[in-house]
Amino acid sequence: MTEETLTGLLDTIWQHLARGTADRHHPARHPTLASIGTDGPELRTLVLRRAERSGALLEVHTDAASPKAVQIVADPRVALHVWLPKPRLQIRARAMALLEPGDPAVFANLPPEAQANYGGPVPGTPLPGPAKRAAGDPARFTRILCHLTEVDALLLSDPHRRARYRADGNWQGQWIVP
Amino acid sequence: MTEETLTGLLDTIWQHLARGTADRHHPARHPTLASIGTDGPELRTLVLRRAERSGALLEVHTDAASPKAVQIVADPRVALHVWLPKPRLQIRARAMALLEPGDPAVFANLPPEAQANYGGPVPGTPLPGPAKRAAGDPARFTRILCHLTEVDALLLSDPHRRARYRADGNWQGQWIVP
Repeated sequence: MTEETLTGLLDTIWQHLARGTADRHHPARHPTLASIGTDGPELRTLVLRRAERSGALLEVHTDAASPKAVQIVADPRVALHVWLPKPRLQIRARAMALLEPGDPAVFANLPPEAQANYGGPVPGTPLPGPAKRAAGDPARFTRILCHLTEVDALLLSDPHRRARYRADGNWQGQWIVP
Repeated sequence: MTEETLTGLLDTIWQHLARGTADRHHPARHPTLASIGTDGPELRTLVLRRAERSGALLEVHTDAASPKAVQIVADPRVALHVWLPKPRLQIRARAMALLEPGDPAVFANLPPEAQANYGGPVPGTPLPGPAKRAAGDPARFTRILCHLTEVDALLLSDPHRRARYRADGNWQGQWIVP
């Protein structure tokens, strides 16, 4: 099994992440992103837009007015998490997040219901009833570039197997206690 | 649709959480728990062991020697997250976490590969090769009681619909901007 070596396991991780960017039914399509808010950690599901192994980069999109954008500006330390039920593999990453304006051409091609994610009142604002669809604002279409500093893979085989890979270790990897 | 009312949506959330404790194939079986570590937020998949609506409590288990146990003692503010792909429903919760010793009778009934999660060297310790199965230590079998302070539900219908429920608002709920 390729996951029996450190490099094989890292290859597997990046294969899953790449599939997440291309296949909307793959569990790596929807990583969970954690940031630190004023009241503790904050988690949300996002769509994985890019996974670039050579640059150790994962990209997701957000509304510039969202709490997570505000949190990332205040503290760029984020964590990403994917749980893959079939191989029973947990992928975790630590990253420094950077906000960049989204591509206006990409925004223009989004359907109205997707554009609506980047407009209207600030997310989290109380409403008198269920939300109505807002008009999208291209100026709020924002990329979160997650520059990975560490990747942690836990394979729930018997016995469990876990490895940690660090940017400052040139992604060589190290077996660690699960 | 029951999710069209605030109470209906909260009912749906607790139904999913209850199913997660009983059905190992339900996505609520494996929530993601976030705590705050010294290097930023930390995420991991856990098994949902109990969901008690009347007490606003979720329970998961951990090894007392694990970094998450150490992190929770230092800062009990945690967040939990479940993504349900079929109904396209994201459940998020904020909680104050409390560690309590696990039940020795429950530990004694675990199979050896499950007991091994609560023993051996401290998780994260470097190893010369893939981990071997450790002997379990009942003294390290620990419950994390997550006392919920807030639940946030995002339904990716069109348009998106989002509600927030707070313990200090008697779980009445409020529609908010998605």
